[in-house]
Amino acid sequence: MAHDGLFITLEGVDGCGKTTQADMLVEELEASGREVVRMRDPGGTRLSEKIRLLLLDPANDDMCDECELLLYEAARAQLVKEVIQPALKRGSAVVCDRFFDSTYAYQAVARGISGNVVQTANELGCCGVVPDATLVFDISPQEALLRATSQGADRLESEGTLFQERVREGYAELAKRYPERIRIIDASGTKEVVRARMLGALRELLS
Amino acid sequence: MAHDGLFITLEGVDGCGKTTQADMLVEELEASGREVVRMRDPGGTRLSEKIRLLLLDPANDDMCDECELLLYEAARAQLVKEVIQPALKRGSAVVCDRFFDSTYAYQAVARGISGNVVQTANELGCCGVVPDATLVFDISPQEALLRATSQGADRLESEGTLFQERVREGYAELAKRYPERIRIIDASGTKEVVRARMLGALRELLS
Repeated sequence: MAHDGLFITLEGVDGCGKTTQADMLVEELEASGREVVRMRDPGGTRLSEKIRLLLLDPANDDMCDECELLLYEAARAQLVKEVIQPALKRGSAVVCDRFFDSTYAYQAVARGISGNVVQTANELGCCGVVPDATLVFDISPQEALLRATSQGADRLESEGTLFQERVREGYAELAKRYPERIRIIDASGTKEVVRARMLGALRELLS
Repeated sequence: MAHDGLFITLEGVDGCGKTTQADMLVEELEASGREVVRMRDPGGTRLSEKIRLLLLDPANDDMCDECELLLYEAARAQLVKEVIQPALKRGSAVVCDRFFDSTYAYQAVARGISGNVVQTANELGCCGVVPDATLVFDISPQEALLRATSQGADRLESEGTLFQERVREGYAELAKRYPERIRIIDASGTKEVVRARMLGALRELLS
């Protein structure tokens, strides 16, 4: 899809600080005079939020891996078609908290669904829309756990640090495979320090 | 997936009589001493019925084609993993009202999503489980409309006979592509006459 917009996705385990960094990135982009659309995946549209509820409802613990994967993709397709694609077409910047790299890191690498299956599903769900830049905020599973627990993220805690370690490996694998799109950012340190790293990485990716 | 079960899917436009024929097929199979599991797709599990509600709710008319496709596949994956696969493994017969051929006939041929995309999505949603026999009940769109309207199927009516004609073409295309699995059955005439045709076609497919 040809467009004048800018599509940036933020990735990393829960507790990595990407929400705080997204706030700062949106500020930075708006200061440059761009319209900025901020989204989260899954979510961002009426229908995608409904699907998000199905995905996150603990009552649905009988959901099989394949159903979960396809629900993520369904929510993503709606987000892309209803919001992201129109925004990019009118030249806006879109900042999205998670996108298809999360699905690969979590579903394929951490949960063990075939990488080819997840990649095929990702191709369907993204409807051909690929980020211009993807920033992965990297911290140790121990620190992520500490931060997320203080935010009340029970799910993360119950999955444990071994799971977080596999997600981290998933992101590392993706960054190696798509160096022109993905940059790993050391997310330890103050938010100002991480902000400077993020903006530096973004400049490199977009230059 | 190797199994001793028997997986039969019934297809056709709304109003083609497949529900009546499914009743008779289940009777026939039970009389032969088999355990029979009867399902509908989308549906058949707690979670798949929830997804079915999303798909059929008229309030969700903002749903994009890709989201709709992926929701059908998500519901199907859950049905396969939770019900169909276990039933086939214990040697049961599964009779399913619609399966992935519906998705191809409706979403690809009638609505115009790329056939390759639908086929790829179908491969993900069926989790490798393919019917042993598929019976397509064929009637003219005019007769289908007449029967369905008397059953109160407004959606069908609003889509019109041209749409039904394209669905019919979709099934014809599939029957040509998979002659060893799919048989088109003339669904005009009394239900006893159609039943005899159905059982004859099934014997041929399974011999």
